[in-house]
Amino acid sequence: MNAFNRNANGVYLITITPFQDNGALDLASTDRMIDFLLERGVTGLTVLGIMGEAPKLTAEESRQFVRQVLQRVRGQVPVVVGASAAGFAPMRELSHSVMELGAAGVMIAPPSTVRTDDQIGAYFDMVNETLGPDTPWCLQDHPVATGVQMSAGVIQRILKQSPQCVMLKHEDCPGLAKLSNLQSAMQRGEVPKVSVLCGNGGGLFLPEELSRGADGAMTGFAYPEMMVDVVNAHANGDVDRAHDLFDAYLPLARYEQQSGVGLAVRKHLFWQRGVISSAAVRKPGPKSSAADLADIDRLVRRQTQRLLHLG
Amino acid sequence: MNAFNRNANGVYLITITPFQDNGALDLASTDRMIDFLLERGVTGLTVLGIMGEAPKLTAEESRQFVRQVLQRVRGQVPVVVGASAAGFAPMRELSHSVMELGAAGVMIAPPSTVRTDDQIGAYFDMVNETLGPDTPWCLQDHPVATGVQMSAGVIQRILKQSPQCVMLKHEDCPGLAKLSNLQSAMQRGEVPKVSVLCGNGGGLFLPEELSRGADGAMTGFAYPEMMVDVVNAHANGDVDRAHDLFDAYLPLARYEQQSGVGLAVRKHLFWQRGVISSAAVRKPGPKSSAADLADIDRLVRRQTQRLLHLG
Amino acid sequence: MNAFNRNANGVYLITITPFQDNGALDLASTDRMIDFLLERGVTGLTVLGIMGEAPKLTAEESRQFVRQVLQRVRGQVPVVVGASAAGFAPMRELSHSVMELGAAGVMIAPPSTVRTDDQIGAYFDMVNETLGPDTPWCLQDHPVATGVQMSAGVIQRILKQSPQCVMLKHEDCPGLAKLSNLQSAMQRGEVPKVSVLCGNGGGLFLPEELSRGADGAMTGFAYPEMMVDVVNAHANGDVDRAHDLFDAYLPLARYEQQSGVGLAVRKHLFWQRGVISSAAVRKPGPKSSAADLADIDRLVRRQTQRLLHLG
Amino acid sequence: MNAFNRNANGVYLITITPFQDNGALDLASTDRMIDFLLERGVTGLTVLGIMGEAPKLTAEESRQFVRQVLQRVRGQVPVVVGASAAGFAPMRELSHSVMELGAAGVMIAPPSTVRTDDQIGAYFDMVNETLGPDTPWCLQDHPVATGVQMSAGVIQRILKQSPQCVMLKHEDCPGLAKLSNLQSAMQRGEVPKVSVLCGNGGGLFLPEELSRGADGAMTGFAYPEMMVDVVNAHANGDVDRAHDLFDAYLPLARYEQQSGVGLAVRKHLFWQRGVISSAAVRKPGPKSSAADLADIDRLVRRQTQRLLHLG
Repeated sequence: MNAFNRNANGVYLITITPFQDNGALDLASTDRMIDFLLERGVTGLTVLGIMGEAPKLTAEESRQFVRQVLQRVRGQVPVVVGASAAGFAPMRELSHSVMELGAAGVMIAPPSTVRTDDQIGAYFDMVNETLGPDTPWCLQDHPVATGVQMSAGVIQRILKQSPQCVMLKHEDCPGLAKLSNLQSAMQRGEVPKVSVLCGNGGGLFLPEELSRGADGAMTGFAYPEMMVDVVNAHANGDVDRAHDLFDAYLPLARYEQQSGVGLAVRKHLFWQRGVISSAAVRKPGPKSSAADLADIDRLVRRQTQRLLHLG
Repeated sequence: MNAFNRNANGVYLITITPFQDNGALDLASTDRMIDFLLERGVTGLTVLGIMGEAPKLTAEESRQFVRQVLQRVRGQVPVVVGASAAGFAPMRELSHSVMELGAAGVMIAPPSTVRTDDQIGAYFDMVNETLGPDTPWCLQDHPVATGVQMSAGVIQRILKQSPQCVMLKHEDCPGLAKLSNLQSAMQRGEVPKVSVLCGNGGGLFLPEELSRGADGAMTGFAYPEMMVDVVNAHANGDVDRAHDLFDAYLPLARYEQQSGVGLAVRKHLFWQRGVISSAAVRKPGPKSSAADLADIDRLVRRQTQRLLHLG
Repeated sequence: MNAFNRNANGVYLITITPFQDNGALDLASTDRMIDFLLERGVTGLTVLGIMGEAPKLTAEESRQFVRQVLQRVRGQVPVVVGASAAGFAPMRELSHSVMELGAAGVMIAPPSTVRTDDQIGAYFDMVNETLGPDTPWCLQDHPVATGVQMSAGVIQRILKQSPQCVMLKHEDCPGLAKLSNLQSAMQRGEVPKVSVLCGNGGGLFLPEELSRGADGAMTGFAYPEMMVDVVNAHANGDVDRAHDLFDAYLPLARYEQQSGVGLAVRKHLFWQRGVISSAAVRKPGPKSSAADLADIDRLVRRQTQRLLHLG
Repeated sequence: MNAFNRNANGVYLITITPFQDNGALDLASTDRMIDFLLERGVTGLTVLGIMGEAPKLTAEESRQFVRQVLQRVRGQVPVVVGASAAGFAPMRELSHSVMELGAAGVMIAPPSTVRTDDQIGAYFDMVNETLGPDTPWCLQDHPVATGVQMSAGVIQRILKQSPQCVMLKHEDCPGLAKLSNLQSAMQRGEVPKVSVLCGNGGGLFLPEELSRGADGAMTGFAYPEMMVDVVNAHANGDVDRAHDLFDAYLPLARYEQQSGVGLAVRKHLFWQRGVISSAAVRKPGPKSSAADLADIDRLVRRQTQRLLHLG
């Protein structure tokens, strides 16, 4: 099994949260989604991520959802839980509770209130103190969502000062130069090696990131098999095959990664693929229009043709 | 008793959250603080506000604190609870639970994700749906904290569409023109009358706001008696007395209202006045330096002299 | 000739500003670039755009560049000049001077200081007053660059109150729903018809935008023939051909549209295609690394193959 | 004479730009304003500042205004010119032209596009290269206007790498801790000594800043004699007198420092004091309402009484 540690690789899929048409948490669909993702070959799962619908859940619903996911996964792959919080007391409470339930670790992004290098560094000193020595964690670098620009130097500083930080979710965009910088520093031994999974622009630069040494992807997409196949082709040294696969899915991926409205697209596709029973998004949230659905149908039809042709 | 309704006036004080030196919630100091505030003549209390340490509490600590406040207040003044949330499910959960405990109402600010007039209006339609017909609420207009600019027109639209919105916490800065605009619209009957309590710049424009028709203040300050006395003098028609009182406290108020670091100043003064047992602020939070304490001592000494002179 | 008016369509290409290796303005390359773009079939040109290097030019260099472009174009296509400014006096000065030189019109985006619907509407009232009755202009809706969210309602209001606004550069992202909204309003006659050219995400949604009624594209790309061919195929009713062409260029377009670093990519490609003599970007600006150039080479090689295959 | 160098102190007043009622530049009022300010004892002047109406001037008007100011000042005090610009070519052009006209130096704030410590440091390396060895300059730290948070460490780095940076305009708010940090570093010789003039919150913390080692003030206020007298009293060791003077003006200063609308207040007061012929503000800009003017009248009346009483 691919553990949540410094050597993790492959695809950690960020799950959606399935709801019923009436807005209630849909645990049966949650089970089906987990099975679907495991069958597609993901090597890890991330739940309660920053951009999903986690903030729309009550505390009790969050616990229910995490518990359901962990029960269904039964340890087949590590599950990482988003635990960014406005304060350290709630961060401690949430991370301890999910670790007890069986999570492999947590993921933390900085709050939008820290700006300077020193503020960011000091914040993660407190994160380390809060999480303690027994909770491995993933550093999330996602400026579009947080407003926090972490320079390559700051990320290196955090990695050096954080014995339990085993993974970086590299999501800055553009981010290829930063990725190269970090990989060089790790190779020269200037900074402890961590697993680097990418979600730059919603995974829209995956093949280039793999060429620069990324260990895989951590993002969401209605066709997780694309990311799994791209990562595997790349790992097998077939870079052109990796690009061929990626390019075949790119027109739809680009459409699904539109910030905000993309969640409705992804849920629609998961519903269409029979993974979840309803494409419902909790308010406030996007809804797909007839024109959107026509776009999606065309993109899926053309994608299917390209995949047939690609073999 | 001054109820939480469209005719509310006076001073709704935004409380701090007292901690022990070890960081634990300090319920004994909470009781002392409530007694202190009631003795100073506040007409209402607001807890779990946007700028305080509410986000640093666990869900259980929040409940404990609200319960303690409500028990100590015993209905002598209305207590309003901050219930802004990233999603409607947690907003519903929190507001229902505090209303059951005996809160008079809740206070809601828009999330930083809404920007245009339409988005803001639509958001508060959903707030109304979420809170239901039995929860009176206060609209918080606080662009510095939320990043959301609500025009005078948008506020009027919200007031018209919200039968349970009984109060506006007017906190935009500069905000005097907006306040005048709203008061005129209420006088002309174009918009339902609500109570307007001000916190513009941390209460630093209170006498001018009262002259423009504000019903009182809702903010925090280590000398709540200043706000109570200013509001009373103004209500009695003695505008110059209101200004004299305000001016006497202004040098310290200005210092205490520095965003971020001001919380440490306020807690230090509450501690110095014997209201709370510790000035501790939970991390991440400001600490007063020796130079800060010297500033505060000088400001308090000079303030005491001015008040003696004023009589 | 395709005039700059309410019926404009096709591709208005946003030009780069060519520099010599020593950083000086390169007027010979400017001429070559104009010829190159006209040969590719663009129907208009936009210079001194928001995201280019216009702010790095001195006032005298701006004038020189605009004059050179206009001389070379010799009226074959309309040239629109970016004239957004921090104040109305400089906006008037710049727009009058370029109109005298022969520009077809100017393009204006709101300043980052306006936020509410009313502020935005009032700002464009002053724009109309500033530009006067003889300067046709294009409204630029580009929230990523300006920070200003203009709702569909606000855009309609601006179009109604602006007799000389003949074009919308639709650049909000995601923006498809907003585009549909506006096209419906124009069809129902609720708002004056204007030309709508799109640059949503750097042109990454062009085929979908055309399906929703956009009149063409206004953005920059090192292969302007892609946009011209996509728009023409769509105009001829061959939607699948439009998608085929678009998809062939998408992997490179996605790479070139990375904000910030993309400018170096575009200049490198223009240099490689023999259009300009140097890929130099003025400081502060991005530089392509060896890894970037390897990415670009692979993307161009694969693109060439796809285009051969496509015929 | 107090030169623009590392030992500068006193009050560098940031001037307004006087306009006639019809919006034209008012050079006669400019002369009167200069005389008025020199008579009040300012030790320097700053023109074309970030928050004033400089961006509303055409390039030619800017030159005219700077030339008029320099002619009238006739070298009696140094004049610093704001030269922050979106690019280095315009920054070089503006700074060279004003230095030739007789300016003592320029003032530079970082552009809103730089965020991380490295980006800010690299930006000022380029500023040094741009300004060259003969242009002394002042670093402006004004996060409210620029959005750029410069940590104490970054400011120290800039001072070390900038042989011609002779002054810091300290305008971060809250900023007292940062000021103490910098003064300590200068005293320990870890960073070259520069003149530190403060404008924190519009000068609303002047006495506290002087107690922490600031060399004076650089901001705007309709009663520059307040700042001059406060700085002098402090320099003479009479800290309580400095506070007495400051407190007497604080109610009005607080009102005049409201961001945005404060400019109309300041111009109204300059007009009322006979300094300028018109309180006109160029659009887009604030206008004082009748209620504002009533506020101002009351504040001035009360201020006059306090000053009489103070002696």
